[in-house]
Formats: sequence, structure tokens, C-alpha cells
Amino acid sequence: MTGIDALLARREALLGPGMATFYRRPLHLERGEGVWLWDTEGRRYLDCYNNVPHVGHCHPRVVEAICRQAGTLNTHTRYLHEGILDYVERLTATFAAPLRAGLLTCTGSEANDVALRMAQAATGRTGVIATDHTYHGNTAAVSQLSTRMPPIGGFGGHVRHVPAPDSLRDPEDGGAAFGRAVEAAIASLEESGHGFSALILCPYFANEGFPAVPEGYLDAALAAVRRAGGLFIADEVQPGFGRLGSHFWGHRRIGAQPDIVTLGKPMGNGHPVGGVVTSPEILAEFRKAFRYFNTFGGNPVSCAAAMAVLDVMEDEGLMANAEASGAHARARLEAIAASDPRIGNVRGAGLFFGAEFVHEDGITPDPETCAEVVEGMLARGVILNRLGLHMNTLKIRPPLPFGRAEADLLAEALADTLDALG
Amino acid sequence: MTGIDALLARREALLGPGMATFYRRPLHLERGEGVWLWDTEGRRYLDCYNNVPHVGHCHPRVVEAICRQAGTLNTHTRYLHEGILDYVERLTATFAAPLRAGLLTCTGSEANDVALRMAQAATGRTGVIATDHTYHGNTAAVSQLSTRMPPIGGFGGHVRHVPAPDSLRDPEDGGAAFGRAVEAAIASLEESGHGFSALILCPYFANEGFPAVPEGYLDAALAAVRRAGGLFIADEVQPGFGRLGSHFWGHRRIGAQPDIVTLGKPMGNGHPVGGVVTSPEILAEFRKAFRYFNTFGGNPVSCAAAMAVLDVMEDEGLMANAEASGAHARARLEAIAASDPRIGNVRGAGLFFGAEFVHEDGITPDPETCAEVVEGMLARGVILNRLGLHMNTLKIRPPLPFGRAEADLLAEALADTLDALG
Repeated sequence: MTGIDALLARREALLGPGMATFYRRPLHLERGEGVWLWDTEGRRYLDCYNNVPHVGHCHPRVVEAICRQAGTLNTHTRYLHEGILDYVERLTATFAAPLRAGLLTCTGSEANDVALRMAQAATGRTGVIATDHTYHGNTAAVSQLSTRMPPIGGFGGHVRHVPAPDSLRDPEDGGAAFGRAVEAAIASLEESGHGFSALILCPYFANEGFPAVPEGYLDAALAAVRRAGGLFIADEVQPGFGRLGSHFWGHRRIGAQPDIVTLGKPMGNGHPVGGVVTSPEILAEFRKAFRYFNTFGGNPVSCAAAMAVLDVMEDEGLMANAEASGAHARARLEAIAASDPRIGNVRGAGLFFGAEFVHEDGITPDPETCAEVVEGMLARGVILNRLGLHMNTLKIRPPLPFGRAEADLLAEALADTLDALG
Repeated sequence: MTGIDALLARREALLGPGMATFYRRPLHLERGEGVWLWDTEGRRYLDCYNNVPHVGHCHPRVVEAICRQAGTLNTHTRYLHEGILDYVERLTATFAAPLRAGLLTCTGSEANDVALRMAQAATGRTGVIATDHTYHGNTAAVSQLSTRMPPIGGFGGHVRHVPAPDSLRDPEDGGAAFGRAVEAAIASLEESGHGFSALILCPYFANEGFPAVPEGYLDAALAAVRRAGGLFIADEVQPGFGRLGSHFWGHRRIGAQPDIVTLGKPMGNGHPVGGVVTSPEILAEFRKAFRYFNTFGGNPVSCAAAMAVLDVMEDEGLMANAEASGAHARARLEAIAASDPRIGNVRGAGLFFGAEFVHEDGITPDPETCAEVVEGMLARGVILNRLGLHMNTLKIRPPLPFGRAEADLLAEALADTLDALG
């Protein structure tokens, strides 16, 4: 057995079968720095995929903040500590009022698990609406939002799914049909015993393939939500923290105001931190209805890591960089697409973008070509992946220090990959 | 407003009202080292409470492991990395076969949330049995095990509670009645549509007040569980990792073999790490029935922190220290109890012990005196708390480097506190 095969065998024995890896031949990584990763054979990869190392792999300021605080004090929130207060104050200042209060967890899954209960506490009801291609995390409660495998014991009957937007196939979609679908789902939940509690969405529809929806897309849906006395939970785990370039939060970009926002992956640059931001009133309702304490949530080290991420974002101008580098990368990709009919369109915002692969009619999804492109890019030292309703859209979501030069490398590798595929 | 009042006001505004703190006047901590904590006014406290900093606050080897790996690579398990394999191999070697496989999470709550689904996957059923004074974590699914506030939407009907042991009031309890209660709960779940999936217990009955149950206490209950085709989940979040001195795991101490073990708090000495250990067969069933991926779970930094904890445990002989220091501390406490009728008994194992406060009949719980003792100890610079069925038992659970000298300080402060209370 080679090294990789031996590792895969150990992994199956110790971690169980069927644990997903990326790529036909999984990567065995050893080191990361900025937008670069190295495998154990010393091969270097341009990371165009990982959003967790938001300000760059192993950013020295985040590492230093973790080390300093881990060597000073790491304890829980039943003692007083300014770290969590300073962080939540700074974090909530990036939101519009009344989103001025927060609760810290260790993962985005925990954040969504809490957000659903906040909406229950605020409305007294339990029904939830999500899109038909969503993913909000891995706890038992949050998994109920998925349309994938039915859990043992079945779905709880309190979730309704609405069709995700598909901007390549319905470019005129302004959100009216989405609003009607949400309205029908609310009516269905009200008829059931569950009642309507919340609409939960990624405001960038990231897992759905980040369709290019216009500002105001959610207006009709959110009007229906408000009329029914329900809440809007914006899952900002993927689009948040400046990734989209133009706005710090995905919901601001489409002009939608959430009642509850959930945070995860990029928040601590890889340190396990998640959180929920909401109004003081909703947080008070939650704390009254559910006793909640999270041992590691909001500990001084997690807060130091999360604070360092905000510091670096600001000092290195990473949101502006996301806007500029993303625009340049998309322009390069559009130039390739102009002469390659396999690419249906190039879309995205800031440093979260991609290209959808289609057959000759320009519409029928071509996930096979997309999969070949992912492997071809890997062979050229570029890490990315695919996602979306049809699994035919490249998922390009690099750490935010990704610059113009790296965008050029990405475009050159893509052109070369497409040439080689013929 | 004084500093503490100002902090409490900021805290209520930013984190919501009703967020629990310890003590009438909460502590504002700044620094930790070994078994000591310092507040922002430079006052030093002997930490007899915190089990999260398992090998001592800010242990330099754990801090160094975190810093080194955080500065090298921090990514997720869809790439291959030896850190998680080496750790799970070393961890599972501390268990009896067939507990040879593991899954890593970020918190004990996530671990229990997964464990319940593992039992569902292995049995195809959803009913769960827990004690009537238990706590297994904060996710929506795990909160269903609690007997405290009914959640919005109600309890799911799939949980049965059995009475927790109370060794002061029923010293002859060998587990037969507990076994019958579990048997009745199984029958009740089988009659309902849910069926019986798992019995979940802390094998030290920590939150129940760590009653002094004999080896074999769970034999009758576990025989009933096996007959019904159910599983036993041992929640080792509190008693595990050598804390009890005589055994590395709480279930070994009472001679009970679990099918699934859950881990949390002490695992990474404060770094957010949790985990589930089970047989390869059960893990395979889980992976088949539920797709599960945890972005931060098992990342290289978490594994480095957790591995360093095992290294320090071994190199510093901390399990043996827990046994010796704990025995010495209990002997000192028993000497105090011998002449103080307010103490019903002193009990515990290793570095998880306490004393139960009672009224003059020697039986009726006296939570008020226990609460006064907690405050009196704090005034003398000793941090501990109370717990149990009647909230009248001191909870003494220090970091494992707690030595004989610290046990003497604890005993002297307790004697002084009791004298002062008159």
C-alpha cells in the first residue's frame, strides 16, 4: 500500500467507513499559509475553496491571539470576562439595529440549533420553512431541515420546503414566485398543528449554487413571514464576514433584514467558534424559555481568535480585497466562458463565485464535466469543488487574502484544464 | 457602579438577561495556572471546581501543542491528516474492545446528540431512558432528556426517566430497584410507538450527586437493556480521563461495559473538543443511516490539544495523583465531618468528591447551609460549588494536578468556614 492507501485504511478502521473525502485521490495536507496549502510530499496548492481560514491559513495574528490567551486564561462564561463582551459589542456593531445582542457557540450547527429555538421562544410555534436544497448543519434538530436521507424516526412534520431559485434557468425571477411558495408553506404549517415559527435561509443561497438573485428578492417572502408573525433567520455561515466584497453580511447585499443571524465557519479562522446575533428582546425570550449554557461557547480563547479575525479583516482591508480580486477573477472567467459553450454562466460576488457547466443546449446541467474540471484543477495544483442544485457549479471560495495574481493563476489553470478536456 | 456591576450591566445588554453566573458576587477572572486562578484585582483562588482545565489551567505543553499546530495547519477531515488518526488510535486503546472507533465533535453536547443517533441507527428505534436528575447537554435533541423546563412544542414522548440513586438515604441500594425501573421504562417505550433504543447515563451519576453505588450497580439494568436489544451510552464527560483515580473511565469503576461512550469537557483542556467512541459496527451503522460531517470536529489543532492532554496525563502521573490527593482530601473532610453533624457524609472518588449537608436528623437535605459553605469558601479564596438531587452536596472537582498541600488548604478553609457559620 502507498501512503495514501494506508491512511485510508487506518481512517476506515478508526473513523468508520463512508467518511467523505474530497477528490478521487484524497489530499494529505501538512502545512498552510495565506492562500496556499502544501501536501506531505511538498507539493503546493492554491486554495480556492476553504472559507474557514477566512483571513488566510495560519494567519500569524490569529495564531498569536490564540496562544496568548490560551497561555493566560481559558474558562467559561459563568465567570465574568471582558473578552466575550468586547467581541459581541464589536460584532453586533456590524449589524443594523435591533441586532444588538449575541450568544456564542462552538459551531455553526450549534448556532442554528439555538436559532430555531429562539424563533420557537419568540413565536410559541415550531414550524420552519427552508429551501429544498439547503444545509444548515449536523445536529439532530438542524438535520430535520435537510431534504436528504429521512432520519430514523422520520421527519418531524414541522418543516416545509420551498424551491430554491435557479437564475440560469429563470433569469427573470424577481422573487414573486418564491414569495408565493413561502406563503403557501406558511398556510400549510398553520393548518398543521405546528404553526409557523421561522423561515431559515442562507441569504446568498450558497448551497443552492448562489443563483444571481436581485436586491429585493426576498421582499415578498419576508412580507408573508411578517404578516404571519414569523421570524427570518439568516444563516450567514457562508456569505458573512465580508466575503461578498460589497457588504459585510449576505443579507445586506439583497436588502433583507433578518430577526436572527447565525454564524460559524470563518468566525475564528478555524478555531471552533459559532454564534447567534439577534435583538435583545428575542434573546431575552430565548433565555426565559430555554436554559442554555455552552461550556466552551464564548470562552476567552475563542473570543480572542474571533476578535483577531475582525482586526485582520479591518487592518488588511480584506473586504475591499474580496471585492476587487473577485471582480478580476470573474472577468477572467467570463473571458474563458465567452468562447466555451460548456460554461452556462459565471456568477457570484466577492470571493464566492463559480461557473455553471451545461450541455450544448446551454441549459441542461453537466455535472460530469464539472467533476472533471475539479479533478483537472487539482492536477494543476488548484483546490476548488462543486455544488448547487445540479452539482454542476464550480465552488470557488478562497481565503480572503486571495489577490489578483492568484486570480490569474486560477484562470490560467481553468483555461488549461478546459483545453485538456477537449 | 463598581467594575463588577458595570460588567454585569454590559453583559445583560450584550448577552441577554438571566445568563447564569456563579456566586452572589460573580468572579471576574484574569489569569490561570495549574490549580490556581487570579481575579482582576490580583486575588488568588484555589480552583477546586473546574474540570475543563483537566491537566491544569494553561498547561504549557497543551498551549504549546495548540500554538504549534495552529501555526502549521488547521483544516477539516475531508483532507487526510494523521493527527486525528493518531489521536483516535491512542484514545480508543484506553477502552475495552469492541470500543475501537471514534468520531470527533467540538462539544460534549454534540457528542451526545450524535450518540443518540448512533443508537437509533443500530436499533432502528428512538426511545431513550435517562435518570430523573440528569443533564447531557444543550442541543435541542439532547435537551429532551432533561426533566427541567418543558421545551416549546413539548417533550417528544420518547424519553422515560428512572429515579437516580441516593446512597445517603438508601445505603443498601445494590441496583436491583434501578434495574426494575429500567425494565419498566423499556416496557413503556415498547408499548409506545417509539421502541427502546438506549439507556444514557453518567456512570458516576455526577449531576445526581455522585451517590456511592457499588460495583455491579448497573448489572440488572444493563441485563434488561441487552434483553431488549438496546444500547448503553455512557456519558463520560465528567468522570472520564482518569479523574476518578482508580480507573481511566467511570464505567470501568462500576464494571459496566457501554456500547457508546461520549466525551467532552476535559478532553482538550479547554480547547473545544468532544467525541464519541463506539464499536466499528455501530459507527458503520451510524455513517450509513446519517450523513454526518463536522467542519471543526477532529481538526488538526483540536487533535493536537487532545493528544497533549493524554501525554501530560501519562508523563505527570495525574491519574495516580487524583487517587492519592483525592483520598487524602476525603480523609481530611471525614475528620471534619466526624465532629460536625451538618455533614451527612463525605463521598466521591479520585478528584471528584464532596460532602452532603443535612439537618439534625442526618437525612433531611440542607441546601441552605451548603450554599452558605460555597460562599464562605469563596470568601476564603477557594472555588467550589454544589450539586445533586437535593442541591446540598459540595461539588469538588479540581484540575488533576491538585496535590496533597492543596487538599490541606481546602480542608482548612472548610473547617474555618463551618466554624464561622457556627
